[in-house]
Amino acid sequence: MSFDDPCIMGHHGGVPKPLPLLDPPSYDGSCCTPLVAAPLTTERAEALAGRLKAIADPTRLRLLSILLSSEGLAACTCDLTGPVGLSQPTVTHHLQKLAAAGLVVAERRGTWTWYQVVPEALTGLASVISPT
Amino acid sequence: MSFDDPCIMGHHGGVPKPLPLLDPPSYDGSCCTPLVAAPLTTERAEALAGRLKAIADPTRLRLLSILLSSEGLAACTCDLTGPVGLSQPTVTHHLQKLAAAGLVVAERRGTWTWYQVVPEALTGLASVISPT
Repeated sequence: MSFDDPCIMGHHGGVPKPLPLLDPPSYDGSCCTPLVAAPLTTERAEALAGRLKAIADPTRLRLLSILLSSEGLAACTCDLTGPVGLSQPTVTHHLQKLAAAGLVVAERRGTWTWYQVVPEALTGLASVISPT
Repeated sequence: MSFDDPCIMGHHGGVPKPLPLLDPPSYDGSCCTPLVAAPLTTERAEALAGRLKAIADPTRLRLLSILLSSEGLAACTCDLTGPVGLSQPTVTHHLQKLAAAGLVVAERRGTWTWYQVVPEALTGLASVISPT
């Protein structure tokens, strides 16, 4: 998604929207022992399953991929409804699920909420799954 | 899990069980374009969500971690029921979900079915999620 896209600028009334300025989110990487290291405890398996469930959804994967393709890994809710073809409340619901799993962070800016990917969270999840 | 564990050998009537001899499974890696590469299409998002749902379950994650810790990345159903504390039909159900997602392969050997991780499938899933 390009920030120069006039269709996207239209959501903001024709004026260029501000570049994302979220502070880089912090992330606790203590979650991410690889599966291959040792058999999982029940507690760790439940925590990891919760994070995987957050992304095991087609809409949430599409939202993540759009955010990952956006400048600063961030976008406004107003720019996400069109590409996924869903209403603003539905998109917000999905983004809140991603936020609850620590995969994105939200920041209110005036009328809109911006969401930014936490890349360390995705890296951590990938490193847990990877067998090498 | 050690193959010298007498509790595990007990499942096989006290004789050492054979080492896993499954042929290395083949895996089609054409599935695995990273999320960060471009916004996902609906079709790709649905396929990826299906594979993630297969592992977004605490029991299936525990089974995968036990297989990954086992010699040859493989184990017999009879050796998996004890560690996860579930019945053989339930364990088989979960293993079949993993097999349907291409994450493990099954091979019948006499009375028991052996399951082996497809490491390329887990590597592919990790590489899709990874933002780098």
